[in-house]
Amino acid sequence: MIQTLTAPAPAPLYVELARSLEQLIEQGTLRPGHRLPSVRRMSLQRDVSISTVLQAYTLLENRGWVEARPQSGYYVRPRLPMHAPEPRMARPMAKPSYVGVNDLTAEVLTLATDPSYVPFGAACPHHSLFPTKKLARILAAVGRNDHTLLGRYAMSSAYDPLTREIARRYLQAGCPLPHDELVVTIGCAEALHLALRAVAKPGDTVAVETPTYFGFLETIQSLNLRVVEIPTGPRTGICLDATRDALANNDIKALMVMPSYSNPLGSCMSDEHKENLYKILAEFDVPAIEDDVYGDLHFGERRPKPLKAWDTDGRVLLCSSFGKTLAPSLRVGWCAPGRYLERVRRLKFTTTLGTPVVLQKTISDFLRNGGYDHHLRSIRRAYHHQLHLFSQAILRHFPEGTRISRPDGGFVLWIEMPPGVDTLRLHRDALKHKINTAPGALFSVKDRYKNCLRMNCGLPWGELIEAALKTLGELAKKQL
Amino acid sequence: MIQTLTAPAPAPLYVELARSLEQLIEQGTLRPGHRLPSVRRMSLQRDVSISTVLQAYTLLENRGWVEARPQSGYYVRPRLPMHAPEPRMARPMAKPSYVGVNDLTAEVLTLATDPSYVPFGAACPHHSLFPTKKLARILAAVGRNDHTLLGRYAMSSAYDPLTREIARRYLQAGCPLPHDELVVTIGCAEALHLALRAVAKPGDTVAVETPTYFGFLETIQSLNLRVVEIPTGPRTGICLDATRDALANNDIKALMVMPSYSNPLGSCMSDEHKENLYKILAEFDVPAIEDDVYGDLHFGERRPKPLKAWDTDGRVLLCSSFGKTLAPSLRVGWCAPGRYLERVRRLKFTTTLGTPVVLQKTISDFLRNGGYDHHLRSIRRAYHHQLHLFSQAILRHFPEGTRISRPDGGFVLWIEMPPGVDTLRLHRDALKHKINTAPGALFSVKDRYKNCLRMNCGLPWGELIEAALKTLGELAKKQL
Repeated sequence: MIQTLTAPAPAPLYVELARSLEQLIEQGTLRPGHRLPSVRRMSLQRDVSISTVLQAYTLLENRGWVEARPQSGYYVRPRLPMHAPEPRMARPMAKPSYVGVNDLTAEVLTLATDPSYVPFGAACPHHSLFPTKKLARILAAVGRNDHTLLGRYAMSSAYDPLTREIARRYLQAGCPLPHDELVVTIGCAEALHLALRAVAKPGDTVAVETPTYFGFLETIQSLNLRVVEIPTGPRTGICLDATRDALANNDIKALMVMPSYSNPLGSCMSDEHKENLYKILAEFDVPAIEDDVYGDLHFGERRPKPLKAWDTDGRVLLCSSFGKTLAPSLRVGWCAPGRYLERVRRLKFTTTLGTPVVLQKTISDFLRNGGYDHHLRSIRRAYHHQLHLFSQAILRHFPEGTRISRPDGGFVLWIEMPPGVDTLRLHRDALKHKINTAPGALFSVKDRYKNCLRMNCGLPWGELIEAALKTLGELAKKQL
Repeated sequence: MIQTLTAPAPAPLYVELARSLEQLIEQGTLRPGHRLPSVRRMSLQRDVSISTVLQAYTLLENRGWVEARPQSGYYVRPRLPMHAPEPRMARPMAKPSYVGVNDLTAEVLTLATDPSYVPFGAACPHHSLFPTKKLARILAAVGRNDHTLLGRYAMSSAYDPLTREIARRYLQAGCPLPHDELVVTIGCAEALHLALRAVAKPGDTVAVETPTYFGFLETIQSLNLRVVEIPTGPRTGICLDATRDALANNDIKALMVMPSYSNPLGSCMSDEHKENLYKILAEFDVPAIEDDVYGDLHFGERRPKPLKAWDTDGRVLLCSSFGKTLAPSLRVGWCAPGRYLERVRRLKFTTTLGTPVVLQKTISDFLRNGGYDHHLRSIRRAYHHQLHLFSQAILRHFPEGTRISRPDGGFVLWIEMPPGVDTLRLHRDALKHKINTAPGALFSVKDRYKNCLRMNCGLPWGELIEAALKTLGELAKKQL
């Protein structure tokens, strides 16, 4: 580990300024709709430079406190009412169980790409949020500049310039990784699949958070593994005591976990929480399969460190992709498998042989010259803004007593409706209105989350979305 | 099955003409180096049209009997001496055994893409044999015409226009397939991987030909399956009696087979042989995983029918890709899983989720407008010619008593040297001369083929290749 990257530094001036303005908003001194002082005026008022004010305002914007209106200035955004409570944590579950095949998952995902449905179901941002024009230009240039690339087998597990870019970004995030220990995969899906096969064999048990991404459950099922679900809070992440209990009482071969902006809860573990989780894993000598696919989508100024940053003995298999941030359709992901590197490499060879180099090079060129950081800033802002708008609309239209998660990153919400609502029934009803949803039942192997729903907020706001949310709310209310 | 497509038709005139000329060559009336009569003269001589003669000459060229020399005419090619015997068939093997991890396979494949080695090892044609310029243009156009494609998730298992093209081609080959029963995969590797997982679970036994493609053995090993090897002849394919014995005496969950131009032998089963093989599979109720990746690379005028053409009850999982014919780096393959369709679809979802649509569309557009058939004709000619040149050079340089396969399609040769030669040792020695080979030991889980070698002939002929073959031959002779 490189010490200088991980040591805490004193907060810069603009962060201090942003914090003090946040307080004014929280206290109600600056109220929703109020215009912030102009940059110049604030600079004089606080005796700081213009650029410090600009940085502070951008930070407030990233965090969702204010919004910029062109030619007008920065305005305080409407906040969620204080009484919108967050969803509750599940009770612990002890016995490992096999995962049943879930036809609903297939249905939700198939409809996700059907343009005639409102796509609340899958966690896919709208294509307009990605720099597809620029990507298409780079893709064309890659083919034009070396068309022989298209005739060469991609047999090794990674395109070197791409893995260097990925490793460089992890270094910046406080997680140094040797670039040649990365295996490039077909999206995060293949990374997770290979990682699971590297650590567990059929009949083995793995642990997951609950609620958890249904793709985890499907992959676990496809490999004939058993699963133990560990309660996870909507804000702080996996419960450490329950984790310790689960590892102590079961022969668990791996923990599959999303420490930064989990899907569906949106929880993000603190650094301390991650460190403690790692210690528990080390104590019981259990590897972790970390899905970090939402890690770059933080609303705060700092990208959360992956769990892998604490990994001193190669037990964390870090999996991620560009699917949520840059190019879902290119299906370029990666795995940093730690001590399982050789095993994952061999499994990659027999599973898909290689990842198309033309796509790896397209992404690598984008990372180097395409303004990836600028793009990330803009989608973070967009996702944050959309989560706000969705939350407000849900509060307006959904049954009284509905709880909504308040994630600090990503683009999904976890919604807990009153116990009388059955979201499986709601899903069927909503399909008739051409609305596709992801009912809570998908997110557990147990009879849980029957009144819950995961909401894809990666959709540009508009009347259609508001109308669909209203319809959903009305259908839910009818059940009560 | 569509009867009209499979019923035998009387041979057209040009085929008759080609046959009579073949006889003249075989009898020595037309000898190597002789010029064929000009097209006009032959047309008058035989009283057929100019176009019939042209078709006949092209057919002779495709079959390797003659070669065209620009501005000069068609010349009879040098034939292999009659005394170059073909390799022998292995003796049967009864007991199933697990496959050991083979580091050599990884080495051979890694070096296959290292430009500093002569790539005799992997079965990869040289990139100059593929229409990479045209592919790059189409790829660029696909991105330009609809850049939003790059921002859309590829969640369903296939891009419809591509599967229609694939199905259309199988129909032409006498194997009607509903296009919506095709799953598009990451190359043939993923197709084989998914097919195997659909039919067998860890501990189960599958049967393969011997010698067999080492990728099969690696995939089988990665899934903790056991294997039974069935003797296969270098010309006619898998031995039916041995197949029947193997299925009768073992609980075999699937047969993995390459009925058309197998890798490494190059054998192609006759229609009758395929039909009988299918009957045996049906009798013992065993599915077949058919690798058809070389099927389009026939030197004769007719594309061999896949085994799938006889499949009346969905027990054949047909796997293939464009990797050997059009675009190895794009990694677009497919599986027609018959009765296992739903299982393969679900496994695809948890393994790689989807196949990049931009690549599927590029290939689909090429198939529709890029002159794929024209391209196929030209690489078939090239492969055929190269096999000839390689065979002759091997006869010149390799130890006396060397046997060489004589495939009617594909681009690999199977070489059996005298028993005193150890090709593993030869492999190590050759690496010092920057020559990468695929020793026979890779192609079986048993101690077999120690004096055998698979040769990649998908390389444009030149002095470097000749020199490398000479070096290989000298190294082998030194062992005797």
